[in-house]
Amino acid sequence: MAAGDEFRPLDEASLVAYIRATPALAASLGGRVDALSVKEVGDGNLNFVYIVTSDAGSVVVKQALPYIRCVGDSWPMTRERAYFEASALREHVPEVYHFDRAMSLIGMRYIKPPHIILRKGLIAGVHYPLLAHHMADYMANTLFFTSLLYNSTTHHKKQVARYCENVEMCRLTEQVVFSDPYMVSKYNRWNSPFLDKDAEAVREDDGLKLEIAELKSMFIERAQALIHGDLHTGSIMVTPDSTQVIDPEFAFYAPMGYDIGAFLGNLILAYFAQDGHADQANDRKAYKQWILKTIEESWNLFQQKFLGLWNKHKDGNGEAYLPAIYNNPELLGVVQKKYMTDLLHDSLGFGSAKMIRRIVGIAHVEDFDSIEDASKRASCERRALDCAKAILKGRRQFESIEQVIAHVRSVTHD
Amino acid sequence: MAAGDEFRPLDEASLVAYIRATPALAASLGGRVDALSVKEVGDGNLNFVYIVTSDAGSVVVKQALPYIRCVGDSWPMTRERAYFEASALREHVPEVYHFDRAMSLIGMRYIKPPHIILRKGLIAGVHYPLLAHHMADYMANTLFFTSLLYNSTTHHKKQVARYCENVEMCRLTEQVVFSDPYMVSKYNRWNSPFLDKDAEAVREDDGLKLEIAELKSMFIERAQALIHGDLHTGSIMVTPDSTQVIDPEFAFYAPMGYDIGAFLGNLILAYFAQDGHADQANDRKAYKQWILKTIEESWNLFQQKFLGLWNKHKDGNGEAYLPAIYNNPELLGVVQKKYMTDLLHDSLGFGSAKMIRRIVGIAHVEDFDSIEDASKRASCERRALDCAKAILKGRRQFESIEQVIAHVRSVTHD
Repeated sequence: MAAGDEFRPLDEASLVAYIRATPALAASLGGRVDALSVKEVGDGNLNFVYIVTSDAGSVVVKQALPYIRCVGDSWPMTRERAYFEASALREHVPEVYHFDRAMSLIGMRYIKPPHIILRKGLIAGVHYPLLAHHMADYMANTLFFTSLLYNSTTHHKKQVARYCENVEMCRLTEQVVFSDPYMVSKYNRWNSPFLDKDAEAVREDDGLKLEIAELKSMFIERAQALIHGDLHTGSIMVTPDSTQVIDPEFAFYAPMGYDIGAFLGNLILAYFAQDGHADQANDRKAYKQWILKTIEESWNLFQQKFLGLWNKHKDGNGEAYLPAIYNNPELLGVVQKKYMTDLLHDSLGFGSAKMIRRIVGIAHVEDFDSIEDASKRASCERRALDCAKAILKGRRQFESIEQVIAHVRSVTHD
Repeated sequence: MAAGDEFRPLDEASLVAYIRATPALAASLGGRVDALSVKEVGDGNLNFVYIVTSDAGSVVVKQALPYIRCVGDSWPMTRERAYFEASALREHVPEVYHFDRAMSLIGMRYIKPPHIILRKGLIAGVHYPLLAHHMADYMANTLFFTSLLYNSTTHHKKQVARYCENVEMCRLTEQVVFSDPYMVSKYNRWNSPFLDKDAEAVREDDGLKLEIAELKSMFIERAQALIHGDLHTGSIMVTPDSTQVIDPEFAFYAPMGYDIGAFLGNLILAYFAQDGHADQANDRKAYKQWILKTIEESWNLFQQKFLGLWNKHKDGNGEAYLPAIYNNPELLGVVQKKYMTDLLHDSLGFGSAKMIRRIVGIAHVEDFDSIEDASKRASCERRALDCAKAILKGRRQFESIEQVIAHVRSVTHD
């Protein structure tokens, strides 16, 4: 720790003093800390994020305050989320320069322009030809290498125990994803009055509530892999050539499908928002097809890369499928097909739940919010909501991502 | 700690000195520690167990050595299992007088004669009219009160993290229940040559290996409740009026069905062993019916008591089914039916796995081992094995315990 061991919230001035007193951060700025420019850029829901620039470099400094930023101090939230974010970042992305647990402060690599938040790119209608490849790689690597397909039970349980401490973030997800949208809650919001009946219908849909209970319990109980925990399109920075995942403060051991579903579900939201962004210059039809293609490729490439890792490491230390039992190529094929089908169903369930909560729960998405005409916005949102409800309830009927895409397409043509 | 903080294996003489130096143990013997009788009675696979008697009382002292007793020091095993046993005992049964972590030693209530190990009673053909009630109570209480139906996620994750440290016992189970029986392993044993082809068939049954992989991953990953972890008929002491569960050193957070399955599966083993114990004086036909009735009642009473606890506490702190969402009696009924059906399927899967491993794995059961005629024993074992394989693979088809009993009965009439 560089600057004492008591927590104090920083502002732009005190951050400069903190950086000057912290060698790892000063070094990341080339040691040129006399004239620093500081810009607060946190547009997320939780934390304060500063980009600090010297004449020799830039660094991102992120501080967690003991509440949820977008709600205020009426909703306290542990600062220890910064510890789990730093831990997960170090596991997945090695570019953390400095972590101060007492201050709940992380110094990390600045992801330079022209990187922008993927969600903003999707709203603007920008094509990202490598996005599916990069995200398939990211998900296959992070999920495979933290699962029992690669690790011993001993390693796995030790990691599970450690991330159990990030329970407050887990509870936050429980509440905003799996509970609030299905009950009357002061935190819920929707595009009223247009979606009043739709929000009520979610709260009164027994079939949906039966399924969401199963997903909620699985989310809490099942320690399948170290997930990012918040892998929507606002947690990804992109250029046409580069894809960088940020903000893993929700990281803990949970079902893999929660991450995959978050990514795919948010792409489907982006798809349903396109009609609201269409204008005479661009009807967005081609872009909608590109989004669907990206969803399809993301899953199929993920599956290919994940199975590639499994085959490569099948004689390693992974405890789940011992080579002495699953050594037969035909059996291994059957086992892998079952594993991937179950994972597709989990991903569809969690992805749909994430879509629903973005329409009738506390935190909405800019994809819809940026559609000015509230009535047009409502019709986009309703299609997304109906699509999500149907996929969530019928997820076990889908055997491939192509079938899911066909379903998404069928909703549009209503 | 009473007697230093270094581990040393005790024998009968040094145990007496240890007790004299340990006030809690001396008190449990009425302070009369001058003339103690000590008897080593550990007939289990793992530990040393002493019954110590003074002229004013008795106490059981159990010590874990750093290996598996029935294999010897060629199979090392953490002594910390004693810590988790003491922890689970304190959670479920309050009669632990003394625990010495350095010595891996527990002093606990002596369960007096005429209590005997249930397995021995089942071999002798003794009726236990209250067994189903008592075990239904035990399972409903221990599983419900350590699940998310009763607890907050915060409490749950804290407990999960703590019991993650009992990972060596978890790995032992993985190996002997979910792995070894399905591969060539030096530890496997079976009634050779009679069952040679049957053991080989288990190792070559791809359908079975596909299912056992799912159960194994669920066992490791899913922290549903604090289970006993070894709830077979050798871990239960009985009289016709009393039922006492012992030996929870495998305790950790895992699927509830693992405990329920262990109990029911071992009753089914006892059932198939009866033909080997029949003689002219007693054809065991009525006793077989009693065992089947006990299986049926154990599940049905468990279900009734478990749902009774759920209904009683449905407005409490349990995180899984919030009253604001599941307040509607019709919906709650549907949710509970699904929960119990899933739990039945899990129990059948795990119970069958436990049956299979007792016939072709390392640790067998006295139910069969006490049948002297090896050929008659083989025919009992084969019926049990075939029954278990069919239940494991077809478990999702069963909707009630009565259907399971009908299947067990049909195997007998082969």
